[in-house]
Amino acid sequence: MADARADRPVRTVGILGGGQLGRMLALAGARLGLDAHVFCPDPASPAFAVAGRHTVAAYDDAVALAAFADAVDVVTYEFENVPAETAALLAARRPVRPGPRSLEVAQDRLAEKTFLAGLGIPTAPFRAVDDRADLDVGVALLGFPTVLKTRRFGYDGKGQAKIATAADVAPALAAMGGSPAILEGWVPFAREISILVARGRDGRIVAWDPPENEHRDHILKYSRVPARIAPTTAEAAARIGATVAEALDHVGVLAVELFVVDGPDGETLIANEIAPRVHNSGHWTESACLISQFEMHIRAVAGLPLAPPLRHSDVVMENLIGAEADDPAAILAETAASLHLYGKTESRPGRKMGHVNRLAPRRD
Amino acid sequence: MADARADRPVRTVGILGGGQLGRMLALAGARLGLDAHVFCPDPASPAFAVAGRHTVAAYDDAVALAAFADAVDVVTYEFENVPAETAALLAARRPVRPGPRSLEVAQDRLAEKTFLAGLGIPTAPFRAVDDRADLDVGVALLGFPTVLKTRRFGYDGKGQAKIATAADVAPALAAMGGSPAILEGWVPFAREISILVARGRDGRIVAWDPPENEHRDHILKYSRVPARIAPTTAEAAARIGATVAEALDHVGVLAVELFVVDGPDGETLIANEIAPRVHNSGHWTESACLISQFEMHIRAVAGLPLAPPLRHSDVVMENLIGAEADDPAAILAETAASLHLYGKTESRPGRKMGHVNRLAPRRD
Repeated sequence: MADARADRPVRTVGILGGGQLGRMLALAGARLGLDAHVFCPDPASPAFAVAGRHTVAAYDDAVALAAFADAVDVVTYEFENVPAETAALLAARRPVRPGPRSLEVAQDRLAEKTFLAGLGIPTAPFRAVDDRADLDVGVALLGFPTVLKTRRFGYDGKGQAKIATAADVAPALAAMGGSPAILEGWVPFAREISILVARGRDGRIVAWDPPENEHRDHILKYSRVPARIAPTTAEAAARIGATVAEALDHVGVLAVELFVVDGPDGETLIANEIAPRVHNSGHWTESACLISQFEMHIRAVAGLPLAPPLRHSDVVMENLIGAEADDPAAILAETAASLHLYGKTESRPGRKMGHVNRLAPRRD
Repeated sequence: MADARADRPVRTVGILGGGQLGRMLALAGARLGLDAHVFCPDPASPAFAVAGRHTVAAYDDAVALAAFADAVDVVTYEFENVPAETAALLAARRPVRPGPRSLEVAQDRLAEKTFLAGLGIPTAPFRAVDDRADLDVGVALLGFPTVLKTRRFGYDGKGQAKIATAADVAPALAAMGGSPAILEGWVPFAREISILVARGRDGRIVAWDPPENEHRDHILKYSRVPARIAPTTAEAAARIGATVAEALDHVGVLAVELFVVDGPDGETLIANEIAPRVHNSGHWTESACLISQFEMHIRAVAGLPLAPPLRHSDVVMENLIGAEADDPAAILAETAASLHLYGKTESRPGRKMGHVNRLAPRRD
């Protein structure tokens, strides 16, 4: 009997997660003539409206997962917190791309930092914190300020507590709610960038120009390309992206968030976080590049060829958060702006409702 | 009781026709956060897979049309041969955009030519032909060669017969199968271009740069932008597009196919055909412009603001016909190419399966 996991021509891409990233993956697949089947527990998932099929079920519903896998040719995901058991159930039936190593490393901040350090990629100093004793030792070693973070399930600043003085130690630990944590030394960064790369099934890697990212209230607000960094820094970022993707045997798009630290000898990069998926700081690729991060990810997971992403314009991406997307008429009337709304019916504070890419001719 | 046709905020766009144009309209609407509901008699319609809802029914199924209208906020279409009764049934319940005048003029080559002539826009000389007597008079007046065309339902060269000599007259008439026809004088054109404009609900008109079009076997093969025409010719084309859109009170995208005739005093434009919809010769706007023809059409019919379409690159669009799309790997590996496949499962000779846009930096 043929191995059910064996490669087959991809006609339908299965996507775990029905948010805006899943929606944009489905749209990108459609441009390549591929059908999408979205799996998400939330019946109001924005991605459902653009997918030929969808399944509403929990991520631990083994029967629904098996039926989903049987209905698609390859499985990918929009978020890194896919439970290991879910990925394993699916992988027994169909290829899951990116693979288990990418999930494992990206789901746990301690595993992630340890993995990066093992590759010789600089990170903030860090210590595992399971209890008060660990935390006291960590604070003594790393000094003030430091940041305590839950090892798992953090995003957009959630599950983080800054420790500026000794008085912050107990409240920070309490904020972890008993979850395993990691204490990270403070990085005096000048700016934040990210590197997005895609790796194909054949191992080929392509990289976009690194965007410079600006956060507000811990949520990405702007990505600007090109970033205000030296050409050698951009090259160093691309090398970090490629090193990470290769070490993970990653297939698909991957982002590494990086701090840029100014020093007497120029700029140094400090790796902060790995996202083994399409990433908010890559939304500008939709308008400023011939091939978007979404299409490149679909190409990679479908086993199709990658191509270096031609960037024809400079660009600023702005996230539209909460009520900012309620009245888009002014944005639509701009000449150099492209609006993308996610079709979410309810705007809540802090919720990502859409984004706008504003183009300018390349300055170089 | 409120008028059911009254304007309401557009959340769902109803699209008549489920081919590649309907599919690309649905995809463009999705980027604006809008849902699509596609109505098409063909259960294998490519547009269904990217639309939240679809209806499989005949265009004269009054019950299905009423339910469709009630489920959407505005109706548009991907083809001009929407039966007048269908449009009227829908228009009784929801706004249909573009409106009845656009359909009426574009459905009948005689009405179209008469309309253009009435606006002072040059066309080939033409005569209505209902029988052999009309045809003999027409040939005597217009000379050889001429082209006899059915007045309705022609596309991609179908329903046309060239009359080069007297011996072609009888077979040409027979080829019309008794349908009302139009005889058109031969235009000694140097090249073919088209003008695409969009007109908003507020009457604002925006125009793209005219593409130069090359046909093979009566099917569009390439559109190149910029066209090899004088700047004054491009301006004249834009004026023709705007004049036609205004005279029709058109809302949405509209294309006018134009012949460019070289003369001692420079280039002259001869209008050939009006398409009251997104058009194959505008597919390059997807990759070379910030706002595509598809998004602009959706904006217009949804009552959203238009913006002049920024073109950031030069471009050549190539239609992939029949087996040309069977092995896209080589195209995907090109650096400056963007492939778009329509998701049609069966490739037949002459069938449009996809297109590829190849970019180059602007030369101007």
